[in-house]
Amino acid sequence: MSMSMASSSLTLSSPTSLSSLSSARHHILRTHINLRTPNNNTHRPLSLTVRALSAPALTQDDLKKLAADKAVEYVKSGMVLGLGTGSTAAFVVAKLGQLLSTGQLSNIVGVPTSKRTEEQARSLGIPLSVLDDNPRLDLAIDGADEVDPDLNLVKGRGGALLREKMVEAASNKFVVVVDDTKLVSGLGGSGLAMPVEVVQFCWKYNLVRLQELFKEEGCDAKLRLDEGGKPYVTDNSNYIVDLYFKTPIRDALAAGAEISALEGVVEHGLFLNMATSVIIAGKTGVEIKDKIIVFH
Amino acid sequence: MSMSMASSSLTLSSPTSLSSLSSARHHILRTHINLRTPNNNTHRPLSLTVRALSAPALTQDDLKKLAADKAVEYVKSGMVLGLGTGSTAAFVVAKLGQLLSTGQLSNIVGVPTSKRTEEQARSLGIPLSVLDDNPRLDLAIDGADEVDPDLNLVKGRGGALLREKMVEAASNKFVVVVDDTKLVSGLGGSGLAMPVEVVQFCWKYNLVRLQELFKEEGCDAKLRLDEGGKPYVTDNSNYIVDLYFKTPIRDALAAGAEISALEGVVEHGLFLNMATSVIIAGKTGVEIKDKIIVFH
Repeated sequence: MSMSMASSSLTLSSPTSLSSLSSARHHILRTHINLRTPNNNTHRPLSLTVRALSAPALTQDDLKKLAADKAVEYVKSGMVLGLGTGSTAAFVVAKLGQLLSTGQLSNIVGVPTSKRTEEQARSLGIPLSVLDDNPRLDLAIDGADEVDPDLNLVKGRGGALLREKMVEAASNKFVVVVDDTKLVSGLGGSGLAMPVEVVQFCWKYNLVRLQELFKEEGCDAKLRLDEGGKPYVTDNSNYIVDLYFKTPIRDALAAGAEISALEGVVEHGLFLNMATSVIIAGKTGVEIKDKIIVFH
Repeated sequence: MSMSMASSSLTLSSPTSLSSLSSARHHILRTHINLRTPNNNTHRPLSLTVRALSAPALTQDDLKKLAADKAVEYVKSGMVLGLGTGSTAAFVVAKLGQLLSTGQLSNIVGVPTSKRTEEQARSLGIPLSVLDDNPRLDLAIDGADEVDPDLNLVKGRGGALLREKMVEAASNKFVVVVDDTKLVSGLGGSGLAMPVEVVQFCWKYNLVRLQELFKEEGCDAKLRLDEGGKPYVTDNSNYIVDLYFKTPIRDALAAGAEISALEGVVEHGLFLNMATSVIIAGKTGVEIKDKIIVFH
């Protein structure tokens, strides 16, 4: 079965309204992507739709807010929603609280990805649940630390990567909200941390093994510390080893599988074939990239 | 590259001495095994050598002790040793302590797979280390809950599966010691638990997903409880979901990969392509099965 773009693809993830950007000029860009490795997951998209909406120059927080508002347009009353973690995700949660309080949205259930998000959502009166009770979500919205051209992500610099991955993997749609500084040509390319959650037992052993996995890329592995200089402990009582790459990861799918296969590794920050849309806020406007599958 | 048995194979894992079984009759049996799935790991063995040594009928504990003594014959002075967990492994540790105290072994360093084993080894004066300081071990010896004809294992009913797997995967040789009640035609075939270590967060969600993975086999998944009826907590602060199969797992390699891919799963009790020798104590004697690779 071969795949290609179809014109009907736009309906898949078109936000319900674009009216909040009243001055928007609307471009339709279409690109094909070449996957570096065969994609075995037929539910995953193989092509992109890019729409660019220009807006006046704004502060970084304004941009995050703008992108967050755009993401919330995907939310419909009655949905079960995955709530991300981080500064951009916090804008999403705030907006959801606002729309619930004004009655523009109703009957929403949120599944938070961290204790922090849980507290914020609870303070805003957003009804909450957990995967145990809601194993299938309609939509998750979250930030990301890196986004590559295939919409693969690095996430988890905030330390919530395992819960984020569990919730977002359980969601029918996963909308990512970033500012354009997060775009990279290849994952690991920002030079910032790619986190790996490991059990505390023999973390040093796994740190060395992780570093050796990425000899080709050049990799510096460091145990994440908290503000007091002690090992940072995740919500799941594990440690985090942060990987810093000299050159981008050559084959992210293979790398993800190899990291997962190490005993004592609980989860890693490569979120591959998970995002269905990425909303990118930049000085020149907000851009939406959708991943879609079209069979013909 | 094709592979077959070679007569030189016996030297690979022949114990240093068989004299402790003075009345032993010595059989050499050789069998070929057909792997159900292609073996991608060229370091792993593709054929078996079976040697059977008969002995008088003994109690279950006598048999475990006999097999443990046989396993300790693989130990040489100066080795870094992985120390398993469980009733049979305890006999191994006891024997090591004895040989060290009499000077028959010296300069041994043990890497324990559980707090329990650590305490036992320390009480016997066995010098101890951890993977952080000794990332490569010469030999690990441990029990198992199930052994299939390819020497793949189910382990971890004792709750130490993650540490056992980390230590045993880091060992050049891994000798398994069991009584013959542990032999199964296919993993999961004993009807007893195959443990999966999961993070506490949304364990119920993962319990349901694990059960659904094994629809074909028929699978009952249960959270492991401690004696007080509360969830059993592993050394790594995780829970254990025990899987009970109605029919043996059809493709253990595929199953292992699928379990590992679930977010929130820390480790599972399928120990595949890890054992290099299995020592089996039965009413009719002690049998040794070796996995070896021979290229020609």
